[in-house]
Amino acid sequence: MEGLSSLYVSIVVVAVAALVYAKYAASKISAYELGNERVKELSSIIQSGAMAFLYREYKALSGFVVVVAAVLAFYRGMPTAACFVGGALCSALTGYAGMKVATKANGKTSFAATKGMNEALGIAFKGGSVVGMTVVGVGLMGVFIAYMAFGNVASGDVETIAAFGFGASSIALFARVGGGIYTKAADVGADLVGKIEAGIPEDDPRNPAVIADNVGDNVGDIAGMGADLFESYVNAILAAMAVGFVAYKGQSLELQELQMKSVVYPMLLSAVGIISALLGTFFVKVKEGGDPQKALSRGLYTTGILMAAGTFFLTKWMFGGVEMFWAVVAGVACGVIIGQITEIYTSADYASVKEIAGASVTGTATNILAGISVGMKSTVAPVLFICAATLIGYWAGGTYGAERSISYWGGGMYGVACAAVGMLSITGMVLSVDAYGPISDNAGGIAEMAGLPEEVRGITDRLDAVGNTTAAVGKGLAIGSAALTALALFVSYASTTGLDKIDIMDAKVIVGLFIGGVLPFIFSALSIQAVSRAAERMIEEVRRQFREIPGIMDGTARPQYEKCVDISTAAAMKEMVLPGMMAVIVPLVVGKILGAAALGGLLGGSIVTGVMMAIFMSNAGGAWDNAKKYIESGQHGGKGSAPHAAAVNGDTVGDPFKDTAGPSLNILIKLMTVVSLVMAPWFPLK
Amino acid sequence: MEGLSSLYVSIVVVAVAALVYAKYAASKISAYELGNERVKELSSIIQSGAMAFLYREYKALSGFVVVVAAVLAFYRGMPTAACFVGGALCSALTGYAGMKVATKANGKTSFAATKGMNEALGIAFKGGSVVGMTVVGVGLMGVFIAYMAFGNVASGDVETIAAFGFGASSIALFARVGGGIYTKAADVGADLVGKIEAGIPEDDPRNPAVIADNVGDNVGDIAGMGADLFESYVNAILAAMAVGFVAYKGQSLELQELQMKSVVYPMLLSAVGIISALLGTFFVKVKEGGDPQKALSRGLYTTGILMAAGTFFLTKWMFGGVEMFWAVVAGVACGVIIGQITEIYTSADYASVKEIAGASVTGTATNILAGISVGMKSTVAPVLFICAATLIGYWAGGTYGAERSISYWGGGMYGVACAAVGMLSITGMVLSVDAYGPISDNAGGIAEMAGLPEEVRGITDRLDAVGNTTAAVGKGLAIGSAALTALALFVSYASTTGLDKIDIMDAKVIVGLFIGGVLPFIFSALSIQAVSRAAERMIEEVRRQFREIPGIMDGTARPQYEKCVDISTAAAMKEMVLPGMMAVIVPLVVGKILGAAALGGLLGGSIVTGVMMAIFMSNAGGAWDNAKKYIESGQHGGKGSAPHAAAVNGDTVGDPFKDTAGPSLNILIKLMTVVSLVMAPWFPLK
Repeated sequence: MEGLSSLYVSIVVVAVAALVYAKYAASKISAYELGNERVKELSSIIQSGAMAFLYREYKALSGFVVVVAAVLAFYRGMPTAACFVGGALCSALTGYAGMKVATKANGKTSFAATKGMNEALGIAFKGGSVVGMTVVGVGLMGVFIAYMAFGNVASGDVETIAAFGFGASSIALFARVGGGIYTKAADVGADLVGKIEAGIPEDDPRNPAVIADNVGDNVGDIAGMGADLFESYVNAILAAMAVGFVAYKGQSLELQELQMKSVVYPMLLSAVGIISALLGTFFVKVKEGGDPQKALSRGLYTTGILMAAGTFFLTKWMFGGVEMFWAVVAGVACGVIIGQITEIYTSADYASVKEIAGASVTGTATNILAGISVGMKSTVAPVLFICAATLIGYWAGGTYGAERSISYWGGGMYGVACAAVGMLSITGMVLSVDAYGPISDNAGGIAEMAGLPEEVRGITDRLDAVGNTTAAVGKGLAIGSAALTALALFVSYASTTGLDKIDIMDAKVIVGLFIGGVLPFIFSALSIQAVSRAAERMIEEVRRQFREIPGIMDGTARPQYEKCVDISTAAAMKEMVLPGMMAVIVPLVVGKILGAAALGGLLGGSIVTGVMMAIFMSNAGGAWDNAKKYIESGQHGGKGSAPHAAAVNGDTVGDPFKDTAGPSLNILIKLMTVVSLVMAPWFPLK
Repeated sequence: MEGLSSLYVSIVVVAVAALVYAKYAASKISAYELGNERVKELSSIIQSGAMAFLYREYKALSGFVVVVAAVLAFYRGMPTAACFVGGALCSALTGYAGMKVATKANGKTSFAATKGMNEALGIAFKGGSVVGMTVVGVGLMGVFIAYMAFGNVASGDVETIAAFGFGASSIALFARVGGGIYTKAADVGADLVGKIEAGIPEDDPRNPAVIADNVGDNVGDIAGMGADLFESYVNAILAAMAVGFVAYKGQSLELQELQMKSVVYPMLLSAVGIISALLGTFFVKVKEGGDPQKALSRGLYTTGILMAAGTFFLTKWMFGGVEMFWAVVAGVACGVIIGQITEIYTSADYASVKEIAGASVTGTATNILAGISVGMKSTVAPVLFICAATLIGYWAGGTYGAERSISYWGGGMYGVACAAVGMLSITGMVLSVDAYGPISDNAGGIAEMAGLPEEVRGITDRLDAVGNTTAAVGKGLAIGSAALTALALFVSYASTTGLDKIDIMDAKVIVGLFIGGVLPFIFSALSIQAVSRAAERMIEEVRRQFREIPGIMDGTARPQYEKCVDISTAAAMKEMVLPGMMAVIVPLVVGKILGAAALGGLLGGSIVTGVMMAIFMSNAGGAWDNAKKYIESGQHGGKGSAPHAAAVNGDTVGDPFKDTAGPSLNILIKLMTVVSLVMAPWFPLK
């Protein structure tokens, strides 16, 4: 194909541009003068806690990476092992960079808030955009390098570069599970003993778990979310490349060129997304007294529109027809719509959350039942939109392919895969907005702990509230892309094994379907129990400090923050092992014993129940959280009333749902599929 | 085939024997003298409430039956419509007979308890066995008549007689959902206002909802459970007949004979099961001072052993080989083992329930999280045993079939279907033991309300406790058979449509899988919300009566029991419509629009998530219930302590889980599959 090298150059240029932007934003944050010693100290305590966690996590995971790499080298060759290590390293790198900047931006945001809303928004959003741009820049660059080095298209060896995604996925799963356990143990410990038993306000420096709680926000929402979207991002691209490669296989010169284009197109889509996001960041500005919500939405929608326009021209130029454009737009729309649906079920502006708040009046049991019902109901609409995006992508890609004598099925599945890439192409902007949330949250905590004036906290609270709303889009992407990417990976798996069908009338496939279906349940149970156990230890420690250290309550003695940080860290390290290993080992065992088709059934079953359970738990948790906040805003008796107590119980139940089990499932289903893809030739066909 | 008519005669004789036994046991109960006017009166109030509910339910459903029959007559011909009506009528008939006898046996059991344990056990178990034997007798007879009248084997028209199962399933779903809403609304209303707010004991005659509560036990556990197992029973037989017919199709004389045998074999298996159960009933006897638990277990295990022995000889005689024997034994064993597993997760003798009780010490939120974890974890082992039974059945049937030049797949799926028949063949005994539970429970309630001496309540409580333990086997059958029967029906569906595969690499099948997967979630949400709404109305009514009717509390005024009965009845009628209609309509719409393969995906998806959710919710609910009872037995502070309050909340959350949503899902998945089977030719193949 002519002009291929210029396309390659443009991919590299765009990826580098994202990284340059990230570096520039980070240096801006570094250069910002922090004129308050107490804020500086608190920020650095949080930073050292967060970095200590990352360090211990990566140290533990390096063992895992080495072992898996050795196994891969043995069974699948050195290139596969190299890709795996590369994916893991890139994921760790983005986690490290994001965490470093975010924990620097938090204190500076609270200090900036003493000067005004716009200045604070600027710092917080810059911090977020470092996370966002690092993820997409490293992601695209990593995929490109893996592709150039090992993506030997001629040999049809798609599972080698898929190992890059495997590396990213495994780090992401551990980061999500570990981060989720860390943050919820700290949160529950700080709330239950501090707020309820000792009666001190949130983020009060007298609370021994307050630092762990603030570290937890970073560990969960920066490192966890970043690794999550990094994994989605690279896997969507890799899956689409793999499906395109398989679908457009053929002897004719025309087909060979189309195949090449189909492999490169997903990377170009991502490049268009990055450019759109870079341009979009310029729209996130607010005048003093203006609405930060509008600024963020403006940035997001500008990015979406630029992405759509860019895709249109790219598609027309590359493929002649615009069918694939519709597939991509279906993906983008699906992600945004699921975000809106998430909002409808979890925001206090809508009926569901109010219903839960109302049910709190008759007690905890009715609050719980109402929350569970809302969570279950909330699965329907997202699933239908995922189905719609799948069918549109399938129709678009199938029609295009069929016109070029490609099987309708092959072209169609390529369309589905491109819908996933489209959905994730705006990750740069979405994650910037998403990461901005915990930075503002932390800034508020620091303002509180440092005793900054009331109005500072007012500004950070407002920034934080805005972040929460806009973050719904991030959740939408995480859910929608998990389903579509898992499907695309699943198709690559099936094509790579050489199975001509995965027939659910076959007894072994049925058995696989059942085993796969049960995995999200056991996985959720394990992570919920892990949070409970860790929270219990945290509760005991906080109680012990209040009891044994005199002077904590009157502020004359400093609590032992480090002890609490240690408990969260140790618990996260220990408890992430079992669910993480399960995700890697079960597919291998089932595939080896029952064969490739049964493993296909397992993946299908786990994707179906995994998606349902992820939506159910994330939304139930979000709805409980906001029902509590709604009551705290003065409804049904407000803070301290019996309904409030019921709602606090609901929120506590929802915490591990929404921040540990739910989001981890999104990664679980992809990790299991990508493991199977990488090891595909290892499984017997009969 | 020679001797076919003598086989037919023996099927009829056995079915009649079951009915004669039921009639005999019922007349024994009728003849038993009830020498206490107050008991007589209470029993008749409960009976009239229960019969009034049945009457209204059947009246409402008759409209549904007529409409569906008309639609079936139009699209699928008169025989299909006739089978459908027959199945619905048979289900209603068993519900009517069972309810009539059970609500007569309850009062007589409490009176018998004044004379001793053995006499009370005798009446209660006789009442249960009327329910059990009616279900299997009517079931086998109904299937046989449908088969003789419309089972035109030569034309290969298996979906006609499947309509008999469709009729049974639809009545069962409405009975389960409606009954579940009825009983839980009454239960929650009686407990929350009576026990907690007014502080009067359980079953106190001053509680206005007490009659509704006792009626509810019959409506849910007698009529609901009876319709449930009736539906499982006939659908398992029908599915196996259908699969056998399709699998053993062939030109050679030998194959034609084998085909005939394969179609008759499931009915003969059921006949052997009935004979075993009839013999087993003679072992349910206890000496004064003896252990009723042992008596029931003895009856159950004797039945199981006789069934296995009878199957061995039947199989050897019919098929020459004993492979199918292993399939049947795998089914029986799977049902019993799942029952044991249920016990391990839900009985206070084991760690899980104790863990939930322990978690109640730190409050409601931890109790809820612990219960949810236990429920989720409890899905794993049953699913693995269902997988094992599937693989054994598949291997056994496949090996046997392959030796006779039948496709391994066809013979294998026939083996899976026969495993389901085997599991359910002991339904006669299992249901006798199961229905005995609510009779003893009611007897205890009546003893309390009638003010019988303490020791009478002691005996009925002991009988009740025993029933609860043994009922675990019934739950095991309900869960295990739901999965296997749904699979067998699913295979019949696929064969009948003429699909050669249902390939989950196909986008439409994937979409079907997702839509199917989401249905159990929305279905559960709807039924949980229905219970909440109905319970709220009940709570208001009970509060109103306490407030407005002076003299209730000192026993001088009679509460308006009928009002509470009305509320439960009306709520059940109204709230069962939406979930019930959904189950019938959604498969038809998806099948018509997206085609037969997508509908196959839908069925597969709903079976997988349906089975998981059913196990999760049933076991979480059971575990919460027993954790509460465990605390009430004096652990962690006993009744009235803070942990007890937390456990009561957990139990209230669990109520709609275990008695409404969970068990209804077992029927939902079969109903959707059998609807699709009956309408199979209506769906486009592409």
